[in-house]
Amino acid sequence: MTVSQIDEEVAKLLELKAQLGGDDGKQTFVLKTAKGTRDYNPKQMAIREKVFNTIVSCFKRHGAETIDTPVFELKETLTGKYGEDSKLIYDLKDQGGELLSLRYDLTVPFARYLAMNKITNIKRYHIAKVYRRDNPAMTRGRYREFYQCDFDIAGQYDPMIPDAECLKIVYEILSELDLGDFHIKVNDRRILDGMFAVCGVPDEKFRTICSTVDKLDKMLWEDVKNEMVKEKGLTEEAADQIGEYVSMQGGMDLAERLLHDPKLSQSKQACAGLTDMKQLFSYLQLFQITDKLSAEKVRTTETQVLVASAQKNLLEERLRLTAELWNAGIKAELLYKKNPKLLTQLQHCEETGIPLVAILGEQELKDGVVKVRNVATREEVRKASQKRGWGNVCSAVEKIL
Amino acid sequence: MTVSQIDEEVAKLLELKAQLGGDDGKQTFVLKTAKGTRDYNPKQMAIREKVFNTIVSCFKRHGAETIDTPVFELKETLTGKYGEDSKLIYDLKDQGGELLSLRYDLTVPFARYLAMNKITNIKRYHIAKVYRRDNPAMTRGRYREFYQCDFDIAGQYDPMIPDAECLKIVYEILSELDLGDFHIKVNDRRILDGMFAVCGVPDEKFRTICSTVDKLDKMLWEDVKNEMVKEKGLTEEAADQIGEYVSMQGGMDLAERLLHDPKLSQSKQACAGLTDMKQLFSYLQLFQITDKLSAEKVRTTETQVLVASAQKNLLEERLRLTAELWNAGIKAELLYKKNPKLLTQLQHCEETGIPLVAILGEQELKDGVVKVRNVATREEVRKASQKRGWGNVCSAVEKIL
Repeated sequence: MTVSQIDEEVAKLLELKAQLGGDDGKQTFVLKTAKGTRDYNPKQMAIREKVFNTIVSCFKRHGAETIDTPVFELKETLTGKYGEDSKLIYDLKDQGGELLSLRYDLTVPFARYLAMNKITNIKRYHIAKVYRRDNPAMTRGRYREFYQCDFDIAGQYDPMIPDAECLKIVYEILSELDLGDFHIKVNDRRILDGMFAVCGVPDEKFRTICSTVDKLDKMLWEDVKNEMVKEKGLTEEAADQIGEYVSMQGGMDLAERLLHDPKLSQSKQACAGLTDMKQLFSYLQLFQITDKLSAEKVRTTETQVLVASAQKNLLEERLRLTAELWNAGIKAELLYKKNPKLLTQLQHCEETGIPLVAILGEQELKDGVVKVRNVATREEVRKASQKRGWGNVCSAVEKIL
Repeated sequence: MTVSQIDEEVAKLLELKAQLGGDDGKQTFVLKTAKGTRDYNPKQMAIREKVFNTIVSCFKRHGAETIDTPVFELKETLTGKYGEDSKLIYDLKDQGGELLSLRYDLTVPFARYLAMNKITNIKRYHIAKVYRRDNPAMTRGRYREFYQCDFDIAGQYDPMIPDAECLKIVYEILSELDLGDFHIKVNDRRILDGMFAVCGVPDEKFRTICSTVDKLDKMLWEDVKNEMVKEKGLTEEAADQIGEYVSMQGGMDLAERLLHDPKLSQSKQACAGLTDMKQLFSYLQLFQITDKLSAEKVRTTETQVLVASAQKNLLEERLRLTAELWNAGIKAELLYKKNPKLLTQLQHCEETGIPLVAILGEQELKDGVVKVRNVATREEVRKASQKRGWGNVCSAVEKIL
């Protein structure tokens, strides 16, 4: 500590003493935090740490990396990204130099980061505070400074594989936090657009009808219908047809039924969306959601094993084994390609420092075994029996780790 | 996800695509972070996490809590606290409502937190980013957005006990981070002030001579002396005397020698500072620096055992055992009082949820034992032999935990 630092600290503490009324208490200060913000006391911090640890452990188990970006961005980076909400952005005062704004979310800074660094493939999480000059109901736990937790898989992959993993992660986190029962709703924009088209919503009204349908979670169907017909000029018939579709709930069965719906099946868009939705549900079944190491270089993920395949058409088996590993608390990954080459899979391990690879092969599966190899030495560490289920493979992997 | 959220995300992604030149590449953006700020990539984040974990584990081992405060404060909370540096504060634009500024350090928000909540006793750490509109040399790793790590023990305690613990913590963290050899410099403002007085520095020149002496880490003594004599009008004799004092280096021995220095011992201030400094070094010797459980209520610290005493005059033994526990990786605390009452010590355990208490007593020390009690049941869990040193007591505590 330098002398001037001590002077600084002493001045601050004397100021504090004055605020506490230590001397003559002449100076009076407004002792408060800024509107819409709050402090977190030690008890609240202990709870936050526990919750964050649960969430981050899940992300790490799924092989995710994390990044950090500054709390403010160039104003122009945020301009035009939030539409009407732009008025809620906190600007910094022009004190000479660049015009800056506090980040409004973590998505735009992430996009800026990807573009700046020409990154096209990354699985990253980012938990940080964002800022909105809103007038939130603080009694309902809403603030002007609040945390967002982003998890994104950026890149071009075979359809629905990353999407299924995202849902698996949501499922795992909500289960581990033990917040009670929950229900995850999934959708595909193409299905909604297709429905609108076959119900006779004119193209120019898609957006506005969308925002009315969005109100179904706070308004009765009758009021939603009224708004569509009376305010937005939709025909009553079209509104009723939309009402019928949006009231439907279900999983694989619903996607299947809608694919054979005489009207909806006429929309190419809707069919594409429904086909992907079926694909998604099939992956979710393999992930069992539908009912309920260390190298010397610095690693950015903590993945312990990559689930790989030696031949084509083993995606289902890869998904199943990966889910078993996650369930056993083992940090595992797979490549999001239906038929990746073995060499590509091994290279991914080497590049990211994953120490073990579980290789699924046709002959091995017939023999009821899974080979587990040390990536660095290429040596076969263990031939795990798969005859009595994938759980045995997990125990085998655990013994090596 | 609601439909309007999807629209939002789609808009952002299309924007990103435009930035990447995906469509016609017409829109061009400046892709950069604000001046003086940077992103952290996954590798940098992995290193940061490791370092932060080391630091936070040490704070927790010492029974510290953590708090969080908003990134901005009312402008008036920061006004007048930083003297000349106030021009480096980032103000937010006046968009109606309160005038706000980004925090400049963690000390003023901490003082505001204590005053607002009328807290007088707390041992807390806070690791967070602070903001300064400086023109730092980024090539030398200095930024406009950077982390500060604060650890403070607020409250009225017997002299030098908390100070010794702070130094023990610095020692532990620097050792664990394995950054190479290090040297911790300690000082007492009263010693410097006393030196100035006996060297004949006029009262009104104390501050300015201070800031010149502060430059000794970047300037040669000759240049420092020149500034004091030629620029600041100090006599050459006074400057030479100061030079002699500030060139001295040492520990307990130096404090002892200066206490008997014919000139310096004439300053009451200096003597008070030197006496405390001796006290500090005696505690540091006990902490071995001079050579180099769980209750149902939410706990804000992770302390496992409180080192307590049943009679007076057992402070040295308490400090010694506490240091042994820390060295063994056990989270331990003691009260910063020379002679605390046993009841007070037990109450501290109950209030903060510390499960075990190690009680030092005169008779027990003669018998070579230390009693370890379960705080909740008051039951004696173990009588640990201390005959072959404190290490045995640590192993005994470890076995219970």
